[in-house]
Order: sequence, then structure tokens, then C-alpha cells
Amino acid sequence: MKIINQKTPHLLIDKQKAIRNLKKISVKYRNSGIIFRPHFKTHQSLEIGKWFGTEGVEKITVSSVTMAAYFARNGWNDITIAFPFNIYEYYDIAALAEAARICLTVPSPESARLLADICVTDIDVMIEIDTGDGRSGTEWDDFDTIKSCTDILNSNSNINLKGLLTHSGNTYKAKGAGEIKSIYINTVEKINRSRSVLGITNLLISVGDTPSSSVVTDFGNIDEGRPGNFIFYDLMQNSIGSCNPEDISIVAVCPIVDIRRRAGTMVIYGGGVHLSKESVFIDNRPVFGLAVKLHEKGWDFFPGNNFVTGLSQEHGIITCSGNLLNSYNIGDMIGIIPVHSCLTANLMGEYYLFDGTRIDHL
Amino acid sequence: MKIINQKTPHLLIDKQKAIRNLKKISVKYRNSGIIFRPHFKTHQSLEIGKWFGTEGVEKITVSSVTMAAYFARNGWNDITIAFPFNIYEYYDIAALAEAARICLTVPSPESARLLADICVTDIDVMIEIDTGDGRSGTEWDDFDTIKSCTDILNSNSNINLKGLLTHSGNTYKAKGAGEIKSIYINTVEKINRSRSVLGITNLLISVGDTPSSSVVTDFGNIDEGRPGNFIFYDLMQNSIGSCNPEDISIVAVCPIVDIRRRAGTMVIYGGGVHLSKESVFIDNRPVFGLAVKLHEKGWDFFPGNNFVTGLSQEHGIITCSGNLLNSYNIGDMIGIIPVHSCLTANLMGEYYLFDGTRIDHL
Repeated sequence: MKIINQKTPHLLIDKQKAIRNLKKISVKYRNSGIIFRPHFKTHQSLEIGKWFGTEGVEKITVSSVTMAAYFARNGWNDITIAFPFNIYEYYDIAALAEAARICLTVPSPESARLLADICVTDIDVMIEIDTGDGRSGTEWDDFDTIKSCTDILNSNSNINLKGLLTHSGNTYKAKGAGEIKSIYINTVEKINRSRSVLGITNLLISVGDTPSSSVVTDFGNIDEGRPGNFIFYDLMQNSIGSCNPEDISIVAVCPIVDIRRRAGTMVIYGGGVHLSKESVFIDNRPVFGLAVKLHEKGWDFFPGNNFVTGLSQEHGIITCSGNLLNSYNIGDMIGIIPVHSCLTANLMGEYYLFDGTRIDHL
Repeated sequence: MKIINQKTPHLLIDKQKAIRNLKKISVKYRNSGIIFRPHFKTHQSLEIGKWFGTEGVEKITVSSVTMAAYFARNGWNDITIAFPFNIYEYYDIAALAEAARICLTVPSPESARLLADICVTDIDVMIEIDTGDGRSGTEWDDFDTIKSCTDILNSNSNINLKGLLTHSGNTYKAKGAGEIKSIYINTVEKINRSRSVLGITNLLISVGDTPSSSVVTDFGNIDEGRPGNFIFYDLMQNSIGSCNPEDISIVAVCPIVDIRRRAGTMVIYGGGVHLSKESVFIDNRPVFGLAVKLHEKGWDFFPGNNFVTGLSQEHGIITCSGNLLNSYNIGDMIGIIPVHSCLTANLMGEYYLFDGTRIDHL
């Protein structure tokens, strides 16, 4: 079996699955009366952005000024940069804010001070709250420090203090829907407590991560959701419990360049520079992807596990089970479900649909 | 302290250290009378290629047809593609072989057959031998299969069977110079045995990896060496025992965007899309980089360990020891020594020298 689209490793999207994922999540937010501001760092694509537009999405999230510029230049005009303010990029941000409504994120009073001292353009700002993830932002119960952020931001009349933002990335350490839900409930409780202690009732609360937006049915007292990965999902989301394998809408297509029958492995053209070195632990070893059988309109799962168990710069090694080795020849293409679709998409730099249409990536 | 070169994460090279690394390795091969065919997949740079040219290098190794084309278009005319032949790229390879001497790698009789059936251009070929790494190639002691490769390749008169090639990547699992040396001696013994059983005495033997080329003093009975990473080195090479921290010639420069004094961490703009998710285990946890103090002409190591212990798409988290947190402010730039310089360079896509000169990357 040969599947030819490109000659070297590339990404295919099953558009039907992606749209199904998108509809499922967007309907859930719409029915809850919560603003759906999806994170576009996952796909970084104007074309995929149009799919969101068709679902009524007008507000988006990105994680860099470069991404904000890419989308602002192409008609998106309500963009939150959910990454701590980088002062070196202030003038780029100010230029962007002339053309689109830009919202920045500040994680601490020091960050707020840098922005308040320089800001000469009308801009929205969210204060980042750490509700347990431990990555960035002010801890939810450090009320004096959060208050200090609001005071500093309010001291500059160009700044519109819009709300409190948290990324409950601790759901990525969860195992299963039950644990995700309890982390989510805890997140919402904490950030609501931060807001109520501040006593500024018109602050919007924004929460975002794919695991909780996928499994939670009642979003509780929040105003905005910012998940991103759900458009593709991946092995990591499956291992957390956010999705089923059948929901994953993206696959890397890799030429088989060696088959080692004695060792029980296949060597693919598809390494760390294509898939990324992100791994999940399955059967007590790091796994970098799952081999699947490509066909003209999609892919099927093989019986048994056929994981990518080794990755160097350009090589991937599939440890094969069952009859897989005998079903393929060198020169065939095989599909690899990525561990972390955002990083794989970033490395590949473009996508294809099964009909051959090329899809852009920043 | 502020170091400004770019506004966002970028790579700086200490050219003096890189040249010192290059001279040390090239002199060692020259004195041994062994062909030095450095691997350019590490830097993928025409400008850095010129530094090698100054050292007398004329033959190079790459790991993709795209890289071969980049260097062939710019004056390099003796290029080994040390990656298993990908039949989909045959016509690109044939076009390249009109302009430069191209050497392909075939890992097995099936791969040799695909090439022999299609090859209409004069081309050099190496048979890839697995001397214990287990990644790709025919096992060194599978003499019948190696013989079968030679027969198939010799059946096409356009193919010049040039030699046997191995990547002793098992040195990457070594701890210290002693273990690297014993793996190297074992590698050389095995591939010589493969050649002597074949009875084709004019086959060239090519071996390549940075750990052994760095620590071995007697290269033994080989004809060609293909290390690459040594031009930069990195934390992984240091952890293996290939280099000292002072030999590492590359650093990622990252803006500090948050300082969390309660948690003892710094948040940098510099994530998996900049550094790569490659990690080494130090103190029983995965580490993604080491923070260093930048100055105008280079960097110094801090007392104690200040590792990047978390990486998401754009964020890096430095777990700080000692007085580090108090020496920096949000808005300063900090240096990060990468774990795997090849992957970081591939993601960053360009370099700078400390005088501001931009250096290309494919």
C-alpha cells in the first residue's frame, strides 16, 4: 500500500473529525452562555481559523505577538495574547492595537508596572492568576499582590483592566475525566475567590485548557473559555482522558525507509524535527507516536500497540507488534498519530487535507 | 542587566569556542590520516560551513536531501546523505548528483533493490551497518544479508559501492569517557569484521558520532569520521562526558517575563517551540536547559544549578537556586544552554554572533 501526497514527512488533517470536535466544544460553550475564545496556537492557520468563523467564533486567543499579527493582518480583530507581557515587544503590540482589539496578560505587579510605565495606546489587560498549575501568574490566594496588580494597571488610563485569566494546566497531570473535573471545579472556585476578595465585580473570568473543556458538562461561574488543542487532539490528550483515539483528527505521514525483521522494528523518515520530542509514558517507557494504517480518506487503528519508541533528528523507530512488519514494505507510507499535535504542527509548518488541499500554518 | 539583540528568543554563538571545538576535532582526524567528513545537520548553515572550509574540510555529511541541496547549491560538491534512501526523493537526488558528488546510504537488501531498480545516474552508495546502536542498518554479523546488499548494488553499473557506514549512537547512552571508548573500540572491531567477511577489501569504513570523536585518541582501523554536534556541544554531550560545560558554544537568549519569588521560579519566553522538548535526567528529573549569565561577549555559569525544569509551547520555567531570583528583574534577558543543540538550532532557524552578525540556518 502506498499513499503519496508529499515525498517527505507531512501532516494530514481529517477535516470531518476536526469539524466534529469544533462543533462539540463550541456548542457546549454557546449553550452555557460563556464566551468561546479558542486558542489558535494549536493550529496557527488562517484556513482552519475560517472553520471556527463558520461556527460563529469572533474572539480568539494566541500565545505570541507574532501569532496575533498573523491573525490581525487577516481579519481577526479581537485577540487575547495569553502569554506574559514581553516588554521588548511593546511597540509591535501598540502597532497591532491600532488595527485590532488586543488584550495582554500580566502575571505580577512587576509586569504590570513595566506595562503601565510604557503604555500610550488603549489596550485591554487580563491579570494572570495561578490556580494551581504553578507555571505563571500570581497565586490565587495572594490577594494583596493581585490587588497591587489592579492598582498599578488602573494608574494608567490607557489600560482597560478587563479581568482575571487562568490556565489550569494542572489538568495535564490528570488521569481520567473524574480527576479533570475535580481540578476544574477547584480552579473555578479559586479564581472566583480571587475576584470576590478584590471586590471588583465587573472583572471577567477566563479559564482555558482542553482537558476540562472536553469533559466538563457544567462550566460553573466563568465568563470565557480558551481551549485550543481539541481541534486536533493527540496521544497526550487521549492518555489524560480528554478524548477517544477516534477523535484525533491529525496524522503525520512518514515514508518507511527500513524494516528490521530481526529486531521487530520499522525505521521511518520522521524524527524529532518532524514530530517533536514530546513523549507520554505508556508501558513504562516514553512513546513519541502511534502507528496507524493510512487509506485514501483517513486511517484505521492496528490491532495491538505499534508505538514510535525512538526518535533521533530525522529517524523514527516503530516497535512493531503482531503482523505489522509483514504488512509493509520499504517505500510505503505509514501514519503516525502525534503525542502533542501543537508541537508537531509547529515543526511541520503546513498541513494537507486528504483531497490534497494545502492548509497554511504560520 | 539587559542584553538586547532580538526581542524574542534567539540563539547566540560564541564563535571563538566553536572554532576551538572545530580545530580540536579536525586536527585529530588530520593527524590520524582519516577523512574528516563532518555532519552538517547540527548547524545547517552556509556561514558555519565556511568555518569548516577554512579548516580544510571539503567533504560533508547531511541527513536529508533538502540539506544536501542547500549545500550543493552553495558550492559543496562532495556530500554523503547519511540517512536511509527514501525512494520518493530519487529524482531530486538524481538532479543533485548532476551538480555534486552525492553518496547515498542503504540499510538493507530491500532498500538496495529499490535503488538498483530505479538508478540511472552515477552515484556513490554506502551500506549502513548496525554495530550495536539498534537504530537502522543491517546487523554487523548478518553477513549473508550484507553480502546480498553488495550483490544487488553491484548489479547496477551506475552505482558505485563505496563502503560501509555505521552510526555508533549507542555512545549516547554512555556515562563517561571510559564507556564511550569501549563502545567505540567495539564498533570498529565489528564493522571491520563485516568488511573482512565480505572479502571486498577496497570498501571504505565510515564511523561517526560526537561522543567518540571527542574522547577517543586512537581512531583505529577506519577511513572516515562523521561527527557533527561537537561544533556546538550541549547539555546532553556534557552529561555523556563528551565535553566540559566551557566547551559549549551556543546559548539561547530568552526574555524573563515573570519572576515568582514564592515559588522560586522564573518564567522565560522560550518554550518547546524554541528549545525543543529534548531532556536529560539530572537529579532524577527531566531538565530542558541550564540558565547562565549573559554578558556582552559571552556567558558565565552561575554557582549552583538553575535548570529549566518545565517547558510548554512558549513558556520555560527555571527552578532557581541560591541568589538568582534576586539578581534579575522581569524584562532582563537570560541565557539558556540547550539540551540538544541540533534540535534547538532547527527550531530557532537562525543564529547571531555577539557582535550582532546574523548567521543563516536552512
